[in-house]
Amino acid sequence: MKIRRNREFRWTPALLGAAAMLTAPALSWALDGKVDGEPVSEAQFWVDTIWTILAGILVFLMQAGFAMVEAGFTRAKNAVNILMKNLLDFSMASIAFWIVGFGIMFGNGNAFFGTTGFFVAPETGELYESLAWTSVPTLTAWFFQLVFAGTAATIVSGAMAERTKFTSYLAYSFVIVLIFYPMVGHWIWGGGWLGEMGMLDFAGSTVVHSVGGWFALAGAMILGPRIGKYGRDGKVRPIPGHNLPIATLGVFILWFGWFGFNPGSTMAAAPNDISLTAANTNLAAAAGAIAGTITAWVLFGKPEISMALNGALAGLVAITCSCAFVEPWAAVVFFGLLPGAVVVLSVVMFDRIGVDDPVGAISVHGVCGALGTVLLGLFHTEQGLLYGSGAGFLTTQLIGVVAVFAFCMVAGFALFGTIKAVMGLRVTRDEELEGLDLAEHGAAAYPDFQGAIGSSGVGGALGGSSGTGREATYAASMRAETA
Amino acid sequence: MKIRRNREFRWTPALLGAAAMLTAPALSWALDGKVDGEPVSEAQFWVDTIWTILAGILVFLMQAGFAMVEAGFTRAKNAVNILMKNLLDFSMASIAFWIVGFGIMFGNGNAFFGTTGFFVAPETGELYESLAWTSVPTLTAWFFQLVFAGTAATIVSGAMAERTKFTSYLAYSFVIVLIFYPMVGHWIWGGGWLGEMGMLDFAGSTVVHSVGGWFALAGAMILGPRIGKYGRDGKVRPIPGHNLPIATLGVFILWFGWFGFNPGSTMAAAPNDISLTAANTNLAAAAGAIAGTITAWVLFGKPEISMALNGALAGLVAITCSCAFVEPWAAVVFFGLLPGAVVVLSVVMFDRIGVDDPVGAISVHGVCGALGTVLLGLFHTEQGLLYGSGAGFLTTQLIGVVAVFAFCMVAGFALFGTIKAVMGLRVTRDEELEGLDLAEHGAAAYPDFQGAIGSSGVGGALGGSSGTGREATYAASMRAETA
Amino acid sequence: MKIRRNREFRWTPALLGAAAMLTAPALSWALDGKVDGEPVSEAQFWVDTIWTILAGILVFLMQAGFAMVEAGFTRAKNAVNILMKNLLDFSMASIAFWIVGFGIMFGNGNAFFGTTGFFVAPETGELYESLAWTSVPTLTAWFFQLVFAGTAATIVSGAMAERTKFTSYLAYSFVIVLIFYPMVGHWIWGGGWLGEMGMLDFAGSTVVHSVGGWFALAGAMILGPRIGKYGRDGKVRPIPGHNLPIATLGVFILWFGWFGFNPGSTMAAAPNDISLTAANTNLAAAAGAIAGTITAWVLFGKPEISMALNGALAGLVAITCSCAFVEPWAAVVFFGLLPGAVVVLSVVMFDRIGVDDPVGAISVHGVCGALGTVLLGLFHTEQGLLYGSGAGFLTTQLIGVVAVFAFCMVAGFALFGTIKAVMGLRVTRDEELEGLDLAEHGAAAYPDFQGAIGSSGVGGALGGSSGTGREATYAASMRAETA
Repeated sequence: MKIRRNREFRWTPALLGAAAMLTAPALSWALDGKVDGEPVSEAQFWVDTIWTILAGILVFLMQAGFAMVEAGFTRAKNAVNILMKNLLDFSMASIAFWIVGFGIMFGNGNAFFGTTGFFVAPETGELYESLAWTSVPTLTAWFFQLVFAGTAATIVSGAMAERTKFTSYLAYSFVIVLIFYPMVGHWIWGGGWLGEMGMLDFAGSTVVHSVGGWFALAGAMILGPRIGKYGRDGKVRPIPGHNLPIATLGVFILWFGWFGFNPGSTMAAAPNDISLTAANTNLAAAAGAIAGTITAWVLFGKPEISMALNGALAGLVAITCSCAFVEPWAAVVFFGLLPGAVVVLSVVMFDRIGVDDPVGAISVHGVCGALGTVLLGLFHTEQGLLYGSGAGFLTTQLIGVVAVFAFCMVAGFALFGTIKAVMGLRVTRDEELEGLDLAEHGAAAYPDFQGAIGSSGVGGALGGSSGTGREATYAASMRAETA
Repeated sequence: MKIRRNREFRWTPALLGAAAMLTAPALSWALDGKVDGEPVSEAQFWVDTIWTILAGILVFLMQAGFAMVEAGFTRAKNAVNILMKNLLDFSMASIAFWIVGFGIMFGNGNAFFGTTGFFVAPETGELYESLAWTSVPTLTAWFFQLVFAGTAATIVSGAMAERTKFTSYLAYSFVIVLIFYPMVGHWIWGGGWLGEMGMLDFAGSTVVHSVGGWFALAGAMILGPRIGKYGRDGKVRPIPGHNLPIATLGVFILWFGWFGFNPGSTMAAAPNDISLTAANTNLAAAAGAIAGTITAWVLFGKPEISMALNGALAGLVAITCSCAFVEPWAAVVFFGLLPGAVVVLSVVMFDRIGVDDPVGAISVHGVCGALGTVLLGLFHTEQGLLYGSGAGFLTTQLIGVVAVFAFCMVAGFALFGTIKAVMGLRVTRDEELEGLDLAEHGAAAYPDFQGAIGSSGVGGALGGSSGTGREATYAASMRAETA
Repeated sequence: MKIRRNREFRWTPALLGAAAMLTAPALSWALDGKVDGEPVSEAQFWVDTIWTILAGILVFLMQAGFAMVEAGFTRAKNAVNILMKNLLDFSMASIAFWIVGFGIMFGNGNAFFGTTGFFVAPETGELYESLAWTSVPTLTAWFFQLVFAGTAATIVSGAMAERTKFTSYLAYSFVIVLIFYPMVGHWIWGGGWLGEMGMLDFAGSTVVHSVGGWFALAGAMILGPRIGKYGRDGKVRPIPGHNLPIATLGVFILWFGWFGFNPGSTMAAAPNDISLTAANTNLAAAAGAIAGTITAWVLFGKPEISMALNGALAGLVAITCSCAFVEPWAAVVFFGLLPGAVVVLSVVMFDRIGVDDPVGAISVHGVCGALGTVLLGLFHTEQGLLYGSGAGFLTTQLIGVVAVFAFCMVAGFALFGTIKAVMGLRVTRDEELEGLDLAEHGAAAYPDFQGAIGSSGVGGALGGSSGTGREATYAASMRAETA
């Protein structure tokens, strides 16, 4: 609508109502438009901002990608549950990262966490010195970083799918985005000790993906495998995903969103950085899909779709830290083909050792995130070991990967252990067999097809979800209506 | 391809063929690149245009979001019908808004409608004075506004789903975008009486969403409820949606598109406006999802997915008018949590009073659009009652909301009543029971799964849709082939 | 992350490891930022680049659109197969177009193919003179052109769906992107003979869509129809697509991506070109959907969804070459309504002559691509016959269309014939009846719904795809688990 003739937003500090005072301080958004305190040109400020915000919007859609991948790779009887978890973990992440997450991650503070800038205060340069290198307004930076935080949170849901209590899920997901994810982020991106040591992670192979993956590992270990995953003989019994078209759609959406994730991490309209990161991102994903397909083909005798999809994701995760620093051939070979093969072996390995990860999240995000971060120590075109710069940078990368792994495992065991003790982490055996959709949500993902789902599906008891959802049990009336 | 070395498009007026003369005048696209008649810098013209066009593209995808939400929240036997309606209402909107809609909405004219600029004439500043505040070319403004018009149109389809005749749907959908939607738009955004009074609606809580929602209300009232929605005892019987994964995908896509809808309504690359609108949009959606979940949990005993999804949409609708004018805490509390709770109560209320809205469109778009517009009267940081500026602005917002409601209800009853009298509005009872897909389109949404759909699904009579669609009845041959 | 304070990427040439030397030369990315050798302003360089990269990202998502359209329009028992083909053809295209495709297409060379710039060398102006008109960095140009190449490749998969061997598909898909597509591209966009003659194809109606469509035609002719497509009496028996909601979603995603495809082909932030191309693209798509619906309604008695969807795509394909050169009324009438009707007749015609194209790809991309390219000869506002400029340009367009058709048919027959002779092109009769998912991938797209798929579906033998995919046959254990 016709409202702004000026191109700069002016915020009028104002007396707030009583309710407002309880929730947030009076705010006054100032322009940023400065890099390291120096004003940039108007044009740069405009372009940097729309680039960063559009990239963030692309990353947001990854939430849909994760929802489709996780729903598609699990069983129909648990689809509503995983969709709800995906919707609500991002919703809670939005609030948590607004309240304190962003301040802990980017606020000024000590080597371990930020202590300023809660509720996303406007004075970028003063409160968030670690973001002084970008010209975008504080709220744009917050939005872009929020969608990253949401990604880290939602990774966990996949590995713990089909057996985690809904309330417990909400609790730990909130805590991870509120505290643990921002802390690791502060170490590497927010002025903390790993960044000071020289560790590099361009768009978050470690900060985002490994953090998600290692919490997922801790969670899956504490939860234990799904009923039926291992036979009485201890052999692995695959549990196929119920809807591979939406799982594939999800991977394409993730790949799409990754073009915001990686090139957008410039947080500046820098043509050559953007070009290189976009090209490397795509090459690694493509090579990963090819390698995942071939590896599964060799090992299992068939070109397996879930491994092709996970191969693409493995490449995307591995190139995330490296996309601005390595050459395209390296993106293809070491950040694409290699993780695409590794992810298959990793999935098999975790299955063998009894860690049940329904969608392969630990292998994709944890293992390949760590792998990419370490490999950057070899292939960084200025600091990499293979470019003659010595082992110092490689060592730093290794230290970073190990430190993040150790922190997440300890924090994860503490968090999930506490939740398990206090409120329980897993649904009952009956609920798991019946399906979490009916047990936890009184719903079915596909009520018109209930008859089709095998004897232990959601079916039998017809528990459809109402489009407008009132009575919890209406099986009889539904039956009557559709008859 | 290599074609333009100049960065400005030059249009050569030319003698048109005879057929052309019948449909449109000779056109000559001029540059705009001016704000209020004053030329802006080249860089601003470039950035404003690509920002606005990209935002419009994001909004376009909301058509897919609505299609998935509406198909997912209704029954399998009516899925093809609702998909067709979504596809064709946007297609017809594109033509209608090109012919006269845009002229009525933004053309110069009187307080009630525009009378210039049909067929999207090129002289922005002269013919569309209400758009003189944006620097973008006329066709970019048209495209951005068209996707808004398409949104208003498609909202109606959800509330009237599963029982409206296809031809009647096409008729009223065309008329709404041709005349009624642009009229209300003119009042508020096009230089009309409400805008002159000082009413504010940044991105269309009232202009787009309430208009769609109130027409939906009029339509649903005239149509009456679906067969089976109310038992012989008069009690509400929920009719569950048939595919919740695609419904959830649809909501994520809508949320994604809303980042074009709201921030894009700057129609200028204004960094701080864009930042604030994006942040507020996301916070309200997130808070809405949380409030919808909690409210349904309290009322119905389970965290219900359709209410979580509608809660997110309720927040998005409510913040649409306000995103550029309120502080984030207000976005969370009053434009997120509040509408997220209200939408649940509203859905229950409409069900109780006998208005059958399969997807909750009236509550989401009508009620929450009105709610947000009124609340802006309280929380606008310069003009809001809570910021000490008196009740004048709040009164204006109230007048606007009431006027739009009254106009849409009167126009809606007149339009739907006329169509009902002339061509009928509802399918026959047999067609409704059989499903609109088979009856109206000779198709099934999921022909390979027909056996799975209960005794009254599309099934029994196997009416598959051909990938390339020729013979209308081929049940026998299909049977033969698949046997 | 905090990494770049400079806005220009500086690449340090370096001694590469031994493995690297085998795959690519040492590279040094220079800035481009020049148009025809003259430096442009910093702001233009920034805006041109982010516009082009964002447009390319939109085009990337068309891969998801094709995957959903093709999976939705075919049978459930072949869904995994078509998804895998879509994933891997783009993955292989990424590698092929990096190795040599881009060099053949845009590298300096002769009238028929480029001979420089393999592995995407950095010196834009020198090695790729045909791209000197755009200011964007080489890797951005490569990325934008890659997603076009991927589109051409994936078109073929639809027409050859449900019966082509997976390995053979991979082979020919790779060769098309490696050699044949870039050759035609060189002729028209890369400095070759057709471009020199004056042929115009703004965004690829011929270069991308017709090339894909004609290879699809050659392939479908050599393959022969699917079992059951023609009865013993020779009559056509439609084979309905199994999931129309995802097919519809796919078309919306394609339409969305086309706003990158067409407006993005400016490869420059040129406001008026972008505005006109976006508006024309949308008008043609909308008119195409309407015409497809009406035509099918008249011919078959019902408004048929697959024809509505293909009508929209037909309009999009036809306007692709013309969107920057014609007026909106022509976009509606001749590049929208006309191809929307033609595509229906074309689909019927190909069915009648025994060419089985499960998704209508030949008609949509081949026929309507050629149609649009020829019609541009009439309606180009400067060179079109109807604008008084004589028949020269029309003749050039006709020559181009015929030449590309002839080349693709010859190359296609040679390619598919060779593959048929060497490794076989089609699966066995048993595999086709059983479904390619089980036969080629040991998987089912919807394992939880297997009982629902008719007697010849994937079902019976329960071959689920593992979320983490190990053992190829686990029917018994699955049964046990779900029981």
